[in-house]
Amino acid sequence: MALLDISVVPVGTPSPSIGDYIAEVVKTCSKARVKYRLTDMGTIIEGRPADLFKIAQKLHETPFKKGIRRVITSITVDDRRDKKVKLDDKVKSVTARIAK
Amino acid sequence: MALLDISVVPVGTPSPSIGDYIAEVVKTCSKARVKYRLTDMGTIIEGRPADLFKIAQKLHETPFKKGIRRVITSITVDDRRDKKVKLDDKVKSVTARIAK
Amino acid sequence: MALLDISVVPVGTPSPSIGDYIAEVVKTCSKARVKYRLTDMGTIIEGRPADLFKIAQKLHETPFKKGIRRVITSITVDDRRDKKVKLDDKVKSVTARIAK
Amino acid sequence: MALLDISVVPVGTPSPSIGDYIAEVVKTCSKARVKYRLTDMGTIIEGRPADLFKIAQKLHETPFKKGIRRVITSITVDDRRDKKVKLDDKVKSVTARIAK
Repeated sequence: MALLDISVVPVGTPSPSIGDYIAEVVKTCSKARVKYRLTDMGTIIEGRPADLFKIAQKLHETPFKKGIRRVITSITVDDRRDKKVKLDDKVKSVTARIAK
Repeated sequence: MALLDISVVPVGTPSPSIGDYIAEVVKTCSKARVKYRLTDMGTIIEGRPADLFKIAQKLHETPFKKGIRRVITSITVDDRRDKKVKLDDKVKSVTARIAK
Repeated sequence: MALLDISVVPVGTPSPSIGDYIAEVVKTCSKARVKYRLTDMGTIIEGRPADLFKIAQKLHETPFKKGIRRVITSITVDDRRDKKVKLDDKVKSVTARIAK
Repeated sequence: MALLDISVVPVGTPSPSIGDYIAEVVKTCSKARVKYRLTDMGTIIEGRPADLFKIAQKLHETPFKKGIRRVITSITVDDRRDKKVKLDDKVKSVTARIAK
C-alpha cells in the first residue's frame, strides 16, 4: 500500500472559487470506494500503486466533464515497499515522536 | 491569510524512514507558534504570505542541522485575496457541498 | 496532447547523489519512445493523458528495480483540451511575449 | 547554490491561457538578475537558499498585481550542501551517464 496526494486545479474558471470541482473529485473517490482523507490542500488516497495511478487519472478528468478546458493536476506518490503504509500511520508516528 | 503545504525530504539517509526529520519540521512549526495541521503527506500552515515563505525556509533548513547534506522541499501556496482563507475552511466547504 | 512533469526521488540512498536513478528514468522514457525533455528538476513528457499516466507509473517503478525500498514521486500534468499542447510550445509563447 | 523550480498558477482567469502571467514571472526573474531557465512547466532558478525563497515570494505576487485574486504557486527546492549545484549541471551529469 502506498499513499497518493492529489490536487486538481481547473484553469479558466469564472471565479476564484473552485470548491465545486473539488467536490467532484471527492465524490469520485467516494464512488470508487477508495480510502481517502480530504485536506485543505488536496486529497490523500491509500492503495496499491497501480490502482492509485488509475484513480489519479480519473480524478484529473472530473473538471473536463463540467466544461473546463484546462486542468493542472499535481500528484505526489509516497510508496514504501519495506513496510505497509496506510492512511494516518505517518501522522501517528510523527505525533508519537514529538510527544517523547 | 493564505495556506502553505510543505513536504521536506532529506536525501541520502541511511534508512527509508524519515519520521525523525518530519518530527523536527513539526517541532519547528510548534515553536514558531504558527497554526498548522500535520497530514500524512506534509504540513499545512496558515499565515500571511510573507510569514509563510519565511517559515518555509526555516523548515527547509531543519534536516541540515541534523547532518543531512541534501534536502528536496516541495511547497504549495494557496493564496486568496478576495476572502480570508483559514485552516479547515476548505475541508468544511467541500464537505458541505458533498452532503447536499 | 498534454504535458507531464515528473520527478522521481529514491529515499534511503547511501549518498546524496541520485543521478544513477534519474538516468534510469530517462532511459525508460527513451525506450518507451515518448517525446521528453530532461530539465535540472525533472523530466517533461508530451503525450495523451492516458499514456502519460501509464508512463508515469512505469518511471516511478524504476528505483525499486535497483533495490530502493521507498520512492517519492512528484508529478504535474498540464492538460489543455481547447488546443494542442506540445513540448517547447509554452517556452516559445512566453519568450515571444517577453520580446514584445 | 541551490535550485528552485516554481510554477505560478492564477485561478479565476477569463480564459485557459495564462501565458501573460507567466511572462510577468519571467520578466521579474530577468529584472532581479538571477540565473534562470524557463521550461514548459515552470521556471528553474539558481541561487543561495535565502535568496531563492525571497524571489519565490516576489514571483508569487506577480499575478495579484495584474488583478488576479487567487494564486496557487508550486515550488520545489533542491538544495545540496556537499557540493555546488548550478543550472545545467544535473542535465549534463545525467546525459553523460546515459551515453555510457
